Order: sequence, then C-alpha cells, then structure tokens
Amino acid sequence: LDPLLEYIPDYILEKNYKLYGNTFEAAEHSIFEFNKDIIDAIYDIVPAIKPQSAYYEMYGWQGVRALHNTIKYAKHMGMYVIVDVKRNDIGSTAGAYAKAYLGDTSINGDSLSAFSADSVTINGYLGSDGILPFYEQCKLNNKSIFALVKTSNPSSGELQDLILSSGETVYKKMINLYNEISKDSLNEYGFTSIGAVVGATYPAQLTELRNEFPNIFFLVPGYGAQGGGANDIAGAFNDKGLGGIVNSSRAVMCAYKKGNYLPEEFAKAARDEVIRMKNDLLNVIK
Amino acid sequence: LDPLLEYIPDYILEKNYKLYGNTFEAAEHSIFEFNKDIIDAIYDIVPAIKPQSAYYEMYGWQGVRALHNTIKYAKHMGMYVIVDVKRNDIGSTAGAYAKAYLGDTSINGDSLSAFSADSVTINGYLGSDGILPFYEQCKLNNKSIFALVKTSNPSSGELQDLILSSGETVYKKMINLYNEISKDSLNEYGFTSIGAVVGATYPAQLTELRNEFPNIFFLVPGYGAQGGGANDIAGAFNDKGLGGIVNSSRAVMCAYKKGNYLPEEFAKAARDEVIRMKNDLLNVIK
Repeated sequence: LDPLLEYIPDYILEKNYKLYGNTFEAAEHSIFEFNKDIIDAIYDIVPAIKPQSAYYEMYGWQGVRALHNTIKYAKHMGMYVIVDVKRNDIGSTAGAYAKAYLGDTSINGDSLSAFSADSVTINGYLGSDGILPFYEQCKLNNKSIFALVKTSNPSSGELQDLILSSGETVYKKMINLYNEISKDSLNEYGFTSIGAVVGATYPAQLTELRNEFPNIFFLVPGYGAQGGGANDIAGAFNDKGLGGIVNSSRAVMCAYKKGNYLPEEFAKAARDEVIRMKNDLLNVIK
Repeated sequence: LDPLLEYIPDYILEKNYKLYGNTFEAAEHSIFEFNKDIIDAIYDIVPAIKPQSAYYEMYGWQGVRALHNTIKYAKHMGMYVIVDVKRNDIGSTAGAYAKAYLGDTSINGDSLSAFSADSVTINGYLGSDGILPFYEQCKLNNKSIFALVKTSNPSSGELQDLILSSGETVYKKMINLYNEISKDSLNEYGFTSIGAVVGATYPAQLTELRNEFPNIFFLVPGYGAQGGGANDIAGAFNDKGLGGIVNSSRAVMCAYKKGNYLPEEFAKAARDEVIRMKNDLLNVIK
C-alpha cells in the first residue's frame, strides 16, 4: 500500500479537497479511505500489507498519521503488517526505531505503541549492533524483520554484487550475517525471525539464496510493475511451497485504471488483481 | 536534538502529563518545549541542529509532529537543519523521501512542504539510483545530503571495513561513489552537496578520507558521549579549518544533569556546554 495521490480515484480526492482544502489533511483522509477499502476487499485473500513509509512521510505528519491508522485497521482485520521503512542506525538509536515499529514506548510508566506492526524492513550497513535491537524486539514480542540483501532496483549491484577479498559477494556477506544472528529463532516451519529482501528482478540470486539459506524467509519485491513475473519468483520457494512473500503494489492499487472498471470499482479491481496474482503465483509454486 | 523523555526535566514532563495524560501528545509537547528552549539558548553559537528521527518516531505521529515543529522553529531562528533519517530505497521511493525532507509535495496543484529541512542523512546500500533523487533535490533547492561512509558505532567495520577484490574497503568504495555523483556541485568553499558521515570514533579514517577527498564535507557524530574527543575530530578539517560539522547530542541536552544547575536551567547548561565544546574544537582546528 504505497498510496501516491495519483493512484487514488479523483472522486475521493475531490471530496477531501472540498472538506479540507489543498492540505496534507486532505491527502491523509484520501489515503486512509483508499487503503481501508482495498483492505476490506482483499484481506481474505492476501495475508499481509506492506505500506511503504516514504509515501506517507511525503504528506507530512498527517501522512504519518494515515500510516498509523492504516496499520491499525489492517491489524484489526487480521492482516500481518510489514512496515517498509528500511531503518538503520547505531545501537541505541536502532533501539528507538525497534520500539517505534515492533515494541512499546514508555510514557510515565504506561506502555504505548507508536506504530505497532508485525514486521519491519531494515538496512544492515551499520553491522550487527544496528540489527540486534530489532532482533531483541522480535524475540520479546514475536515479531519479524526483513533485512536488505539483494534489492530489486537496477543499481543494486553497485555495492551489493561486489566481490569481497574473501571471495563472497557483499549481499552474500549480509545474508550470512543475518543468518548467524537469527539462527536460534527457528519457528515451527523452519524459518528464522530475520528474513531477507531479495528482488524478483534478480531470479538467479533468489534461487541461489533459497538453496544456500533454507531457514531464511524472503520478502520479494519487484513483481508486477517493476518487471518481475511469476517464473522469476519461483526460486524463492522451497519444495513445500514455503519460503517467501511476494509484494505487489502499483498493479493492485491501480488495477481499476487498466481493466473495464469505473473509478468507484477500485476495490473490486484490486480484489480481481490479487486473485489473478495468487493464481499466477500458485502456477509456479510447488 | 535527540530528545528522549529521560533527558527532559521532570517539571516539563509533569506539567504535560497533567495537561494531556500519559499520552504521546504529552511527549510531543514536552519534546517541543525542551527543543525550543535549547534552540533559543544556542542558535547564536551553533550553526545547525541534527534531530534524530528515531527519537520522534518512537512517540508516534505526534512525535513526528514535534519533529516537524522543531525543524520549523529552528529554520525560523536561522539555523541549518540536518534531519538524521538515514533514508534509503529504490529510485521512485527515494524520490518520495527526497521530496518529504528536501523538497515539496504537490497537493491538487499546490506545493506544500512536509518537513522542509536543509539536509538529510542517507544510506547508499542500494546504489546510485537510490541516491540520485536526493541529489536532484539538492540541485533544485540548494540542499545537501550526508551519506553514510564510516559510521561511529562499534560494529561499523563488519561491512564497512571489508576489503573488496579491487583492494579498497567498502567505505572507500561508497565515498568514491558519492564523490563521483556529486563532483559537478562544488560550492564557493570547494565542497560538494553530498557530504559523508564519518564517526569521531574512527580518527584514522577521518584523516585518511580528508586527505583523499578534499571536496567532501564531513558530518562527524560520536563526539562526547560516544567517546570521541577534540583530538579525534581534528583530522576532519583542512588547513583552512573547514570540512566538517561535529555533532553532540546527549552532552548538550543533559548538560544540566552534570554541572551545578537547577532543572530549570537546562537551557543555560546547554549553552555553557556548546561554548565549552566550541572552544574545545577550536583548540584543534587550524
């Protein structure tokens, strides 16, 4: 759920511009209404939402309030919420981010939750002391993390594909670090609480990493609008059909713009698209 | 300005708990009041503030509103504002972050600014297509970026110090990438708009990188509470005394807890500490 205003039907935007003017409050209300209707239309088919924080932060603290309300509503509907924030910092500060997204904040002895998601994306460039505070929250509160390994963008190789003097690539070094940190957190399906972000746009690396790291769960962006197809993500899954969750954003949110739909049917169009996507994925997963 | 509630005098917290209950609104108002008084006490001595976003996000969207109001107030007082967010993502999403912190967001044809700082920290793990959208905003709006190179934390070397097959370290590879991207943006002092984060806790690397990258401005965290002293940061500066900005947070915010101050004198204590810090730094800068 990366709700750029361009993705939202005009009738929703216009209603809120009328009510709130050309303000971030108008954006906030439009985003939440759009997200809520999509969640209502897909929650029985799709297990998780992954809101991308950038598309809320660009609408100010009001946009961040829309993110908060979206997380809360999706949780209420029983969905798993992965907040895509790619946070990273030194230990004490990483601890503050971990509390913000996976834990609680103490206010005069009361525990309040700031964003309270199930999972969060992180960037491990700072090494283990920036990762461990998130992992601590996983253990305390039964949460998970997805750490960047091989990202879906065209220039991801500029650092991630470089070969280290040890002979391994940077992305392999990173997944080894995550694997080492999380190895004592195997769940009943054999996966640890630190997953890896590996893009659908790099199918060879998906297959390579699935074979080499059977206990690491993958978050796979890049399916759909970024160019990855079902065959590209097949390698993410093991022979039980487990091991990854595939993200689609634009293709779902903007489905109503492509098919034979009225703007008012955006949620139905989203539902049709996630059913199509589900069948597309099931064709390639064992 | 990383305003953990533990840093804020009790009389401010208690006033706001009375007004707002044990809520994020109480945190928000306490944080903003604390920040505002510190800014009032130091703005004529210190050129910039660097709020760390984690310590606002942990107090929910209300904390993010305190960040917004802090940025706005510091700008009003003529300070340069570096928002320490360490954002990173694929190109289109990096563009949304860049708009959020360095540019404008369009709402029904009106340009609004979400956070409107002067500079932002970024993490370059995703390569150039995640960096260029921030650089574009630098060029459009006369802003700057500080990109992570060699961070101040103990485990920063786990990835950053590794040697690549080319013989250079990962952190050197990253600063070379930033240097290459930004080389056409030299300002009148000979620095580009993409600076580098290099920790005071790694003085040898500060000196090495200053000599090798004369056009890259440094943001130097780790002075004070993290253990770096004035001699450790001396290498960040060139023979004109230029080239870096040194961050101190806890030592300034909590100065009133160390000296002979009343809690009500926290802003005076902060002023005394920044004067002490300024003299400490001037002793080692040519």
